[in-house]
Amino acid sequence: MLWLAARRVLGARTQCRRGWSRTVMSDTMVDSWPVGKVDRFGGVSVRLQPGHQRDEAAFRSWLQGAVLDEVSGKVLVVQDRNKTVNAWKFPGGLSDPGEDIGATAVREVFEETGIKSEFQSLLSIRQQHKHPGAFGKSDMYIICRLKPLSYNINFCSQECLRCEWMDLKELAYTSNTTPITSRIAKLLFYGYREGFHNIDLTVRTFPAVYSGLFYSLYHKELPATYETPE
Amino acid sequence: MLWLAARRVLGARTQCRRGWSRTVMSDTMVDSWPVGKVDRFGGVSVRLQPGHQRDEAAFRSWLQGAVLDEVSGKVLVVQDRNKTVNAWKFPGGLSDPGEDIGATAVREVFEETGIKSEFQSLLSIRQQHKHPGAFGKSDMYIICRLKPLSYNINFCSQECLRCEWMDLKELAYTSNTTPITSRIAKLLFYGYREGFHNIDLTVRTFPAVYSGLFYSLYHKELPATYETPE
Repeated sequence: MLWLAARRVLGARTQCRRGWSRTVMSDTMVDSWPVGKVDRFGGVSVRLQPGHQRDEAAFRSWLQGAVLDEVSGKVLVVQDRNKTVNAWKFPGGLSDPGEDIGATAVREVFEETGIKSEFQSLLSIRQQHKHPGAFGKSDMYIICRLKPLSYNINFCSQECLRCEWMDLKELAYTSNTTPITSRIAKLLFYGYREGFHNIDLTVRTFPAVYSGLFYSLYHKELPATYETPE
Repeated sequence: MLWLAARRVLGARTQCRRGWSRTVMSDTMVDSWPVGKVDRFGGVSVRLQPGHQRDEAAFRSWLQGAVLDEVSGKVLVVQDRNKTVNAWKFPGGLSDPGEDIGATAVREVFEETGIKSEFQSLLSIRQQHKHPGAFGKSDMYIICRLKPLSYNINFCSQECLRCEWMDLKELAYTSNTTPITSRIAKLLFYGYREGFHNIDLTVRTFPAVYSGLFYSLYHKELPATYETPE
């Protein structure tokens, strides 16, 4: 995940999915990267493309996609290369400027795993301060529920060691995962068993006060009876 | 709200609540502010304090606090000065670097209205792209449910024209509000009537993978039966 962040923030992508070229990190970029963190990227390094600037603000909006196949009860998981050993996680990465939450999750899942999916709901947000990969700033991590539209995995071997469809209950209770993945897997298992209305934040689009703009509002489903006064 | 953003982002505060001094905006700051937006601030202008930089990243995390007195069924609302006429809104403002979601909401509510409160839950997040006050970037707006700890209003007259405890149902169905406030007031009214568990995202703190750090995860309550395998 951090590796994915590095690629995006430094303004270049590896060849996974989109065919962007793998290049060499400049000294300037190495110098400005947090000390002692460079080796997280396993020797694969990148260089700023012309016209791109490192965007520190982008560090504040990370997306993960929990892609659940409701027919089989399996969920899409990856193990990052050069990260916590044997830790299964949901695929994901950083938002591009101006990109919707759901669109980021769908795009990042596809780039990392080759699986096409569609946005269903927002499940959780996480706030963490002084993240070592985020220039000491706070970051915002958003986890979405996605529905798969394809099933054949073709994962990015530069980012991932492994990628599988794993039984959701197994992910919820395995020790081979991170605390956040474990928690969200349990939440997703609860929704899968007792109804996604228990866990979903739905999205609704409204016109903004400023002419021609729209915004997306995420919250628990509001019963129709509350739309108008009694 | 935008005025509040201007104060925070330009690195100075007016005298409301904290006694910071009201100063004059430098030409540099006026030049770098979005064209045509300066008059939103009603002639009250600010100057960068030494050592402060305008932080564009901060534009991406706004907080609003819906302070509901469960005993009276009244909610705390304000009308911004120099903003939409007669539009009741929840008080709020921008997060400081490294500040928790709930802490920002509590602090901003106090600075704007003089009401002390405590964090109860996260209710909603909003994503809007190309916000005219956010340098064309996307912003993230977070609305929290707060519980009042004091009731005597002492609002900031530089930010607000009016500040009241309003009947929640009245706010939910009045036309004198913004679409987002109306929607969240209805959601809050639903929670007030049928239980806040229907609308709340609760928070739980976890240790991060990086030693010594912690993060806060917000999602719908997970039943205890799902904490461990059957």
